[in-house]
Amino acid sequence: MNTPQDFINQLIPHKTPKKIGQGAADVNIALSKYWGKRQVELNLPTNSSLSISLPGLGTHTKIQADKTLQHDCVCLNGKRLKQDDPFAMRLSKFLDFFRETPNTFFDIHTENTVPTAAGLASSASGYAALVLALNDCFDWQLPKKELSLLARLGSGSASRSIYDGFVIWHKGQTENGLDSFAEPIDAPWSEFCIGLLEIDLKAKKVASTTGMQQTVNHCELYQAWPKKAEQDVQAIQQAILQQDFSELGALAENNALSMHATMIATWPPILYWQPESVEAMHMVWALRESGVEVYFTMDAGPNLKLMFLQKDAERIQQAFPALKLIRPFG
Amino acid sequence: MNTPQDFINQLIPHKTPKKIGQGAADVNIALSKYWGKRQVELNLPTNSSLSISLPGLGTHTKIQADKTLQHDCVCLNGKRLKQDDPFAMRLSKFLDFFRETPNTFFDIHTENTVPTAAGLASSASGYAALVLALNDCFDWQLPKKELSLLARLGSGSASRSIYDGFVIWHKGQTENGLDSFAEPIDAPWSEFCIGLLEIDLKAKKVASTTGMQQTVNHCELYQAWPKKAEQDVQAIQQAILQQDFSELGALAENNALSMHATMIATWPPILYWQPESVEAMHMVWALRESGVEVYFTMDAGPNLKLMFLQKDAERIQQAFPALKLIRPFG
Repeated sequence: MNTPQDFINQLIPHKTPKKIGQGAADVNIALSKYWGKRQVELNLPTNSSLSISLPGLGTHTKIQADKTLQHDCVCLNGKRLKQDDPFAMRLSKFLDFFRETPNTFFDIHTENTVPTAAGLASSASGYAALVLALNDCFDWQLPKKELSLLARLGSGSASRSIYDGFVIWHKGQTENGLDSFAEPIDAPWSEFCIGLLEIDLKAKKVASTTGMQQTVNHCELYQAWPKKAEQDVQAIQQAILQQDFSELGALAENNALSMHATMIATWPPILYWQPESVEAMHMVWALRESGVEVYFTMDAGPNLKLMFLQKDAERIQQAFPALKLIRPFG
Repeated sequence: MNTPQDFINQLIPHKTPKKIGQGAADVNIALSKYWGKRQVELNLPTNSSLSISLPGLGTHTKIQADKTLQHDCVCLNGKRLKQDDPFAMRLSKFLDFFRETPNTFFDIHTENTVPTAAGLASSASGYAALVLALNDCFDWQLPKKELSLLARLGSGSASRSIYDGFVIWHKGQTENGLDSFAEPIDAPWSEFCIGLLEIDLKAKKVASTTGMQQTVNHCELYQAWPKKAEQDVQAIQQAILQQDFSELGALAENNALSMHATMIATWPPILYWQPESVEAMHMVWALRESGVEVYFTMDAGPNLKLMFLQKDAERIQQAFPALKLIRPFG
């Protein structure tokens, strides 16, 4: 009784489409990472995680059920995808849970304002926007907690993209997965800045789910990760509530590096870093040694995301002229 | 009763110098790393390790006791060091254990054929050569096991540089440290090659002892290291005895990356890698994907040490023209 379909059926009131649905969601950057699944089918994580949503970077999705269609039609950034495109196939597999009849197909138009699969978590905003669009299309009027649960099934980190600002995704403990959802942390911090340093926009070689499971199964050091991650989530939440930026930055950078360490120590090794990533890391550390408070985090890709306060923004942009500055609460 | 002086006194028969002493030893590269001390003063390791000695790269040392000297005189590569030079001070501190009277000082001439402190373990060959020179100078005629124990006190990995070929350093269990010594593995392998890829010959920023202890104390992932390292030593020894190169290479590369992972995951982070190190790693992995069996290991520095068989040497030297080829049994 713990299949994804059972899970969905417990959350949605019906499967009768009512109108054209629309939804929009932002990408999020984890300050304490989601790395490892305790249950793959339900996307149940080994550990809780904590993120910040990035306003203006995300996905907008429009969806319409159409019984005259022979299959789902997926348009990504204005381009119609082939049926066997991996992106379209993953989407259709998710939509299978929501069809009124086996022959109800959907027409989906989705626009990303972040490069797809470049380590900027477009699947997070993608599945959050899709679930919001479905909620609109079926007129379910679900509360955000339920939307977060549904989005989680599409992509774990999508559970967090249902909200703005700082967000915590509780790992949950039950087998049915109904207690593994995200919630906002009500702590706006206008000085808090994110800087995107794009090292390489090419699609990554190892998908994050693959990397994650390979690490869980083939990395001895990973056994220490779940406990550490849980402690980090709690400590980072504390730092946010106290607006203790030094503490937040140190915890988030160490958390990201620890996640990457588990990949580096797996076999075969997974190294998302490019030479330019390492160059940028050393630059961040040199800046910090010179007294500028800047920290970084990295996801399953070569790009760095810098964290700093507004007062240091100018100096950091001088050091990294290509930096894209984002003020999550600005 | 477990001071370094007690330890020394149990091993050496007397402290009366007999003649000018000479000793030579090679550097070694750990295929399963020494990373962490369970007792700092006696240089007792958390885990066993396994290495290969590199013929022709090492240290030659000449030592003479001289009661007319006011302090030790240390010449390194023909250059007289100042008394407060860190290299000379470390050496003098070690020699304190062997003085017949507090006023017996030594004249030491030491020549390295590897760059000092560049991640090529010159301290390993250095303290092994020094102990061999002391054995000659005092005419102790100690067996190699005892020489390995003495060398360990100077620098942990020096315990392995007492021997040629493959060497295992047993971590030992006793508090007095008398069971923590190295032994040779009698398994010559003429096809086995090492290639040195020197990324950066500048002295490293974080000394390996400092990096090691910071990792032991401030890295959650480190707790899984000692058990893994012990398993790796056993498995690598098996691979050597069976001349199973694929197994040996995979185990050694994973062991090195796991050690670096514990440093990356410590706080503040320790990253010995330079952009060029990561570039070289990706090149090794690309070569391997193309069917060339080459693996790498790395120590507390940015350089890579490649492992391959003689039959692939030409192809690997084409990919890395600056490679220094070494045949440990050639």
